[in-house]
Amino acid sequence: MTQNTVEKTRTSVTILGLGAMGTALARTWLAAGHPLAVWNRTPARAAVLAAEGARAADSAAEAVAANSLVIACLLDDASVDEALAGTDLAGRDLVNLTTSTPAQARARAEWARERGARYLDGGIMAVPPMIGVPEAGGYVFYSGSRELFERHQETLGVPVGTRYVGEDAGFAALYDVALLSAMYGMFAGAAHAFALIRKEDIDPASLAPLLADWLVAMAPSVHQTAGQLRSGDYTKGVVSHLAMQVAGMPTFVSTAEGQGVSPELLSPYFELMRRRLSEGSGEEGLTGVIDLLVH
Amino acid sequence: MTQNTVEKTRTSVTILGLGAMGTALARTWLAAGHPLAVWNRTPARAAVLAAEGARAADSAAEAVAANSLVIACLLDDASVDEALAGTDLAGRDLVNLTTSTPAQARARAEWARERGARYLDGGIMAVPPMIGVPEAGGYVFYSGSRELFERHQETLGVPVGTRYVGEDAGFAALYDVALLSAMYGMFAGAAHAFALIRKEDIDPASLAPLLADWLVAMAPSVHQTAGQLRSGDYTKGVVSHLAMQVAGMPTFVSTAEGQGVSPELLSPYFELMRRRLSEGSGEEGLTGVIDLLVH
Repeated sequence: MTQNTVEKTRTSVTILGLGAMGTALARTWLAAGHPLAVWNRTPARAAVLAAEGARAADSAAEAVAANSLVIACLLDDASVDEALAGTDLAGRDLVNLTTSTPAQARARAEWARERGARYLDGGIMAVPPMIGVPEAGGYVFYSGSRELFERHQETLGVPVGTRYVGEDAGFAALYDVALLSAMYGMFAGAAHAFALIRKEDIDPASLAPLLADWLVAMAPSVHQTAGQLRSGDYTKGVVSHLAMQVAGMPTFVSTAEGQGVSPELLSPYFELMRRRLSEGSGEEGLTGVIDLLVH
Repeated sequence: MTQNTVEKTRTSVTILGLGAMGTALARTWLAAGHPLAVWNRTPARAAVLAAEGARAADSAAEAVAANSLVIACLLDDASVDEALAGTDLAGRDLVNLTTSTPAQARARAEWARERGARYLDGGIMAVPPMIGVPEAGGYVFYSGSRELFERHQETLGVPVGTRYVGEDAGFAALYDVALLSAMYGMFAGAAHAFALIRKEDIDPASLAPLLADWLVAMAPSVHQTAGQLRSGDYTKGVVSHLAMQVAGMPTFVSTAEGQGVSPELLSPYFELMRRRLSEGSGEEGLTGVIDLLVH
């Protein structure tokens, strides 16, 4: 192999928390030549990384002292409190990838500021096997200190893609939860679909490609939804009117009954569609349902 | 324009029902040179098509008598009864595109057989603006008489794609409802996602592309679901275990609460995940939820 580029100094990184995700991140940074200090509550996992070239710190405080860029990838927000109690965060760039609510992330940003640290919150849109595999398409939402993000963007982008979504430290968690919530809705719909054919002589693998293609074809409808929310005109560009869709509901419910399938995963959405229609919004599409969810 | 092919005789078609869908189908067949007889309960819509070259029948019986290929595209199953009462279906190829449940389609197939007609049921995966626009990707599920389908496949494929899914006349409706049910689930999830950002200073149009891309990336997971259903091993290839996902639920619920959003669209799915976990299935993914839906 020829070496065409001057060897760069890789940013040193500290990782707190070596669950499946923390370990996957650590390995990718190690492989890319970043000096690494690691700490885990139970030391065995740190020992594994040490054998691969990381420095295993005896305490979180020692790990935090080792490098200015500190990544926390812990179980939950309470674990962040526990791990960082008694560590000196002054001057540190704290990047918190621990799963949090927007409120927890905002409180953590303030907590970090009080301790003299810059703070960036992250929401990981990937599972561990996607880390270090750019073609897998995973990424991390970041929000909080733009200065921190810009300084470390290259390092942060080594294991997985980065998307900065704003100064509000809660936004990364909010985007993360929003996308995963939508995904659970899609999974619920797909579960209902598979349930419908469960007692029939139909191979689920023959339904799957049709289902995947249909969901992929319908996903871009969120752009129309966004346009309507933005303009406030929920009738714009609507082809399937709410009145027509509500008229079609009995077919869905009867089909579920006929197939011995509980309609419980579809009912709440249908109920909101019905409520919106009863408010005189028959010429709209489905966007009005969103407003019924917000108090 | 040069004429390189011998002019083919186009199959004559009768269409019963000229709502938005029936009219769109009629226009596409007319444009492709198929002689057309049309009937609609209220004659004004047939008159419009007559001005475009169709033959407007005075009664459904006259329209049915005109051609051996008869397409019904009516409001609902009861409308099929009404329209076809007193018509002679003997020797006819009846293609019923009227929205039905699988049970209604099966009963209609038997009804048609008793009247000496071949029967094909259709479930339309398109909205009227997609008819005659091949690149829009719409199609119709067909099930029932394979002989009828094969004889008329070319004609049926003129306005929109065709997918034959089996001799069971109920399967077209079942596939149709299954895909649309999954879509409503996805829409419910997307509604929750948009609701989460409703009070924030976030442009819905900046969430939409992230949401669409994420849903598109996650849709192929239905292939894994199908494989698990087929094998009965719901742990195969699982990365995010049910136990881990259930542990993550409080973040979703707290985030919704924090954003002033009702969790009603996600709760039923979460509840089923919890139930499945309580049955000792923590090493599975989400496939087990499907079995909880089926009685």
